[in-house]
Amino acid sequence: MNNNQPSGISPTPLVHGGDWAGYSEEYGAQPLDFSANVSPLGVPEGVKRAIAEAAQTADRYPDPLCRSLCRKLAAHERVSEADILCGNGAADLIFRAVLARKPQNALITAPAFAEYEAALLSFGCKVHHYFLREEDDFRLREDFLEAIVPGMDMVFLCEPNNPTGVSSPREFLLRVAERCHQCGALLMLDECFGDFLADPESHTLKNVLSDFPELVILKAFTKLYAIAGVRLGYSLSANHALLETMRQAGQPWAVSSLAQAAGEAALEETGYVQSVRQMVAQERPWMKQQLEALGLRVLPGEANYLLFRCSKPLIQLLRERGILLRSCSNYHGLDHTWYRTAVRTHEENTRLIQAMKEVVG
Amino acid sequence: MNNNQPSGISPTPLVHGGDWAGYSEEYGAQPLDFSANVSPLGVPEGVKRAIAEAAQTADRYPDPLCRSLCRKLAAHERVSEADILCGNGAADLIFRAVLARKPQNALITAPAFAEYEAALLSFGCKVHHYFLREEDDFRLREDFLEAIVPGMDMVFLCEPNNPTGVSSPREFLLRVAERCHQCGALLMLDECFGDFLADPESHTLKNVLSDFPELVILKAFTKLYAIAGVRLGYSLSANHALLETMRQAGQPWAVSSLAQAAGEAALEETGYVQSVRQMVAQERPWMKQQLEALGLRVLPGEANYLLFRCSKPLIQLLRERGILLRSCSNYHGLDHTWYRTAVRTHEENTRLIQAMKEVVG
Repeated sequence: MNNNQPSGISPTPLVHGGDWAGYSEEYGAQPLDFSANVSPLGVPEGVKRAIAEAAQTADRYPDPLCRSLCRKLAAHERVSEADILCGNGAADLIFRAVLARKPQNALITAPAFAEYEAALLSFGCKVHHYFLREEDDFRLREDFLEAIVPGMDMVFLCEPNNPTGVSSPREFLLRVAERCHQCGALLMLDECFGDFLADPESHTLKNVLSDFPELVILKAFTKLYAIAGVRLGYSLSANHALLETMRQAGQPWAVSSLAQAAGEAALEETGYVQSVRQMVAQERPWMKQQLEALGLRVLPGEANYLLFRCSKPLIQLLRERGILLRSCSNYHGLDHTWYRTAVRTHEENTRLIQAMKEVVG
Repeated sequence: MNNNQPSGISPTPLVHGGDWAGYSEEYGAQPLDFSANVSPLGVPEGVKRAIAEAAQTADRYPDPLCRSLCRKLAAHERVSEADILCGNGAADLIFRAVLARKPQNALITAPAFAEYEAALLSFGCKVHHYFLREEDDFRLREDFLEAIVPGMDMVFLCEPNNPTGVSSPREFLLRVAERCHQCGALLMLDECFGDFLADPESHTLKNVLSDFPELVILKAFTKLYAIAGVRLGYSLSANHALLETMRQAGQPWAVSSLAQAAGEAALEETGYVQSVRQMVAQERPWMKQQLEALGLRVLPGEANYLLFRCSKPLIQLLRERGILLRSCSNYHGLDHTWYRTAVRTHEENTRLIQAMKEVVG
């Protein structure tokens, strides 16, 4: 985690990638950041304009109910407005869901996004890990269903998974939802990277919300629209009482008015979404092949990032070349030999591959 | 609370003022909002520019440690950088402090800002109310010290208090801090409106942080700089272990990069601060006198708002005249005859007084 040490202000290492600020303090320059999984096309122009416009009236408190945004989001996701709760990024909603449910026992896969466990532990919940195996390409196995037992209050599942990038068949996810339903477990299905899949509609469970009142889907604007700095995520659930408890499990004004305006503008950016999806679909196989040509094991990721294994310590060597990569040493079920890289523009990806050749080759 | 009913999307009434969005849905226009206590001078121009500029690079995750902002804030507040933790508004930090401390028993005054109790209750804490009395102008009495007893894990105190606007002498606050120290109670001292006092320096406890490791001061950019929609608050404490636990009691990216940029720019706005402080100091006595001329009891508020009593129901009648006022019916220790009004520009205040004359006179 030597890429994540803040310089002098706090002794606690940062858990995630994306620490351009730490790099910038150390090197006096901006890095090329492959450690965060966001669209490489930058903030859409329409979103930039919407934020600047919203700044004019940011003296007002934000609408705590995000009414205008929810209306547009409902049309976009083809769900009911009442099925939506917006948050200060999906991470805010993870903490709210845990506080709303107050679980005693929860099941998460290993590896998975670190905030599930962080939220569960901060509320004193016992965390049970279901270990994914490298020999299965870290895919869920049939026996995941057996790990969901009565008394397991919450199950977190990331689809496609972060950091592996692999997804499960929708049929299997339906069986997971059914099993959670039988056991009274709340299923938190994180689809934050779902829109990068080749066919998102054939994977999402958002069209069966009403069949599973114990299902909450997490989504974010962060990655697809490249607005990680703005903070905007949302939950989808037919369990309106739960959404209401989540709304009250935190401050009323979590979503800034700038974020609400950004979200509304983002939903207009259909051309941008097409471009970023095309670029990722084109670049990901190329990067995979280039990394494999260096003799590395690369997972068959389906989103805008790739997990690979390399015995050589890469972080500092790439850092010196102006590049941030995500060490996966702090994921349960992985170790210091695993790395995650974002998929970016061809020019940027070429720079990464070139640097990797210098370092590994 | 008829001013706070959202229209059709959620059945739960909103707790606070500032619901311009609900008004706008009902009337198709923007109200003149006296229900939220923010600077009437609007977002400073430099802050608007900083937000628009920050939107350009909002594809990056925010710096989770707010390093650049903390550096400037430390110089501004004349505290150490390590004494600062930024949050998504002060309300975010209230929830984090409660989760960090996990109190069994907590003491709050009645009336007081509603989020203290909301946060405490959501974590299952028993809330003890110290009732302020109208005959004392809702000031803290000597016996507040006796209410702080061993086993009281947290004490919330708002100075000057919201919604009364009155403050306590600094000498008494030091005795409160000392008493909390003796009892092992964490003192959450909310100074969010402290910068509107005639002499903030003679009231704040920020210069004795190191004497009281169990003292956390809450502040916000919201009110003084009119950026309620942006969400930016901070805690000051010499208890760095507690700040670190608070940082981990929630997601790492609570403060958006737009808010961090807005905060840095706001700290340059010394002329703006002078103007808003002057305007409030000039307008507050005028408004108080005008309301008193209508036969109303008005508290001797010292911040940018006034609490007054009126037996006539005002909310709907003013709403029909395009004006939002804050009903205090949902504050413990107050009832439907109490109202809070912000102090705004002379032209706006004149509109309010004129409407009040029509309604009350």
